[in-house]
Amino acid sequence: MILCLTGGTGGAKLIEGVAAETDPAELTIICNTADDCIVHGLYVSPDIDTILYTLAGIIDPVKGWGIENETFTALEQLERLGAETWFRLGDKDLATHILRTRLLKEGLTLSAVTDLLRKKLGIAAAILPMSDDRVESRIATPEGEISFQEYFVKQRWQKEVTSVRFAGATQSRPAPGVLDALAQAVSVIVCPSNPVTSIGSILAVPGIRSALARTKATIVGVSPIIGNAAISGPAHNLMIAAGFEPSALGVAKAYADFLDLFVFAAEDRSLQAELDQLDIKAVATDIRMRDRTDKKRLARELLALINE
Amino acid sequence: MILCLTGGTGGAKLIEGVAAETDPAELTIICNTADDCIVHGLYVSPDIDTILYTLAGIIDPVKGWGIENETFTALEQLERLGAETWFRLGDKDLATHILRTRLLKEGLTLSAVTDLLRKKLGIAAAILPMSDDRVESRIATPEGEISFQEYFVKQRWQKEVTSVRFAGATQSRPAPGVLDALAQAVSVIVCPSNPVTSIGSILAVPGIRSALARTKATIVGVSPIIGNAAISGPAHNLMIAAGFEPSALGVAKAYADFLDLFVFAAEDRSLQAELDQLDIKAVATDIRMRDRTDKKRLARELLALINE
Repeated sequence: MILCLTGGTGGAKLIEGVAAETDPAELTIICNTADDCIVHGLYVSPDIDTILYTLAGIIDPVKGWGIENETFTALEQLERLGAETWFRLGDKDLATHILRTRLLKEGLTLSAVTDLLRKKLGIAAAILPMSDDRVESRIATPEGEISFQEYFVKQRWQKEVTSVRFAGATQSRPAPGVLDALAQAVSVIVCPSNPVTSIGSILAVPGIRSALARTKATIVGVSPIIGNAAISGPAHNLMIAAGFEPSALGVAKAYADFLDLFVFAAEDRSLQAELDQLDIKAVATDIRMRDRTDKKRLARELLALINE
Repeated sequence: MILCLTGGTGGAKLIEGVAAETDPAELTIICNTADDCIVHGLYVSPDIDTILYTLAGIIDPVKGWGIENETFTALEQLERLGAETWFRLGDKDLATHILRTRLLKEGLTLSAVTDLLRKKLGIAAAILPMSDDRVESRIATPEGEISFQEYFVKQRWQKEVTSVRFAGATQSRPAPGVLDALAQAVSVIVCPSNPVTSIGSILAVPGIRSALARTKATIVGVSPIIGNAAISGPAHNLMIAAGFEPSALGVAKAYADFLDLFVFAAEDRSLQAELDQLDIKAVATDIRMRDRTDKKRLARELLALINE
């Protein structure tokens, strides 16, 4: 069984490749839920949705989030009615949030709702939230603390970040199946997602980091950083705020206690010597995933490395 | 000030005419809320919405409910995800329900939310729910009790009805402004809406019926029945179940304690003598509202009768 730890966009690209190169039924995905937010009273789980839509083959291939051929009729009407609409919810996407919100209100767990959505979307891979408990990335800025989505979507990550915390993490428990999956996995892929607010938040759920350190599985991490910047998004800014060096080396160090293998960009070959000192096998390759061919090639390279 | 008591479709047609023939700012509308329902976890208020959309000029003119040029993208996706979709919610319409549900959850009353929606839609007339308390039309059938929407939309009013009750009515209070409007109105129009589940439910809110009997306003009722059938919808079946004769005479009798005037279909002229015995001035005319011209003409006739 192959286990992936992931956030949204970057991780989803790699997972698309992995699902194409293996039996999806042998795939288990643990998703970050610390970016989840309430929008217009609806419970939105952006990373779970990106993974669901990716594996269902309905993801918007240009934006990397939301559903393809989407319309925004309801949102435009909400705007006319005076609602804030900086968080873009398409009409098809709304169906996910409306159904999830109702089922959560009826007492289902986020795990149960995610599994129901997965089945309805015809996805064979198991998709688990990191926790059924509410854990929330909180971004401290000089003007005060904001949610991840306010920082990422509303402010377009232009605000200075002084620190990041995961509200609720210490009281949270891994979702049902997460620790079992970590114990039973043959391989674990730590996807090229934000090491702070995507992977860091998963690791902040008590029991997950120690299970990664303990598992017999081969664990490979993929850098989301090339040079000093994230391939997409604000990972480098958040890494600085969290006290990490914003580089592939910083990523490897953040995961050093559990990684066996680390895949980083060919552009960063100058870091090889420093990476080699971390007791992790570090391999440089082309980590940009421009299209489906790239995604599948990178997935094949990872699987080959794991099986070596 | 002109006050209208109304349900959805039939009442909305007349209100469109009245709003065109008077100063809408002098118009107050008390809406039935006993058909309100929770759909996909969203609070839907069908009659308030029909009145809002009518007065905003965005009602679907063919269906008589919902918003014109509507799409059903979210609903189609909800169907794919396994949700029941017999209650047709369009994408634009969804915005109303999403916003209302959020604001109610945040603690606003239905009155406050309705007033906010009215203002955002640029409506000058005041629109009041009959009550901010939950009152629910419950339809008894040989197979058990169902909600009004299950009877009306899901079953397309094909089930036998044995009785109707208004759950929560005895504990309910008129919404803020309702009793003041009844006391201050110069004219009251009881719209051609279902006498049981649209007007009957408004009258079931303690204080409203006695305020109608007490007010100095001239009160005119309009029949929703021609011959033995409703112009649209199941009013005749529900009247039988509620113990009324399914005819214009039955309607007049149901309102006899507070009506000054009653307008009924020219087709029902044979009822004139019986109607005259009710101590109500009964006037036969063309009550069908096929188009905007009909709506305005009927409104003008009513206003002229009231002013006589």
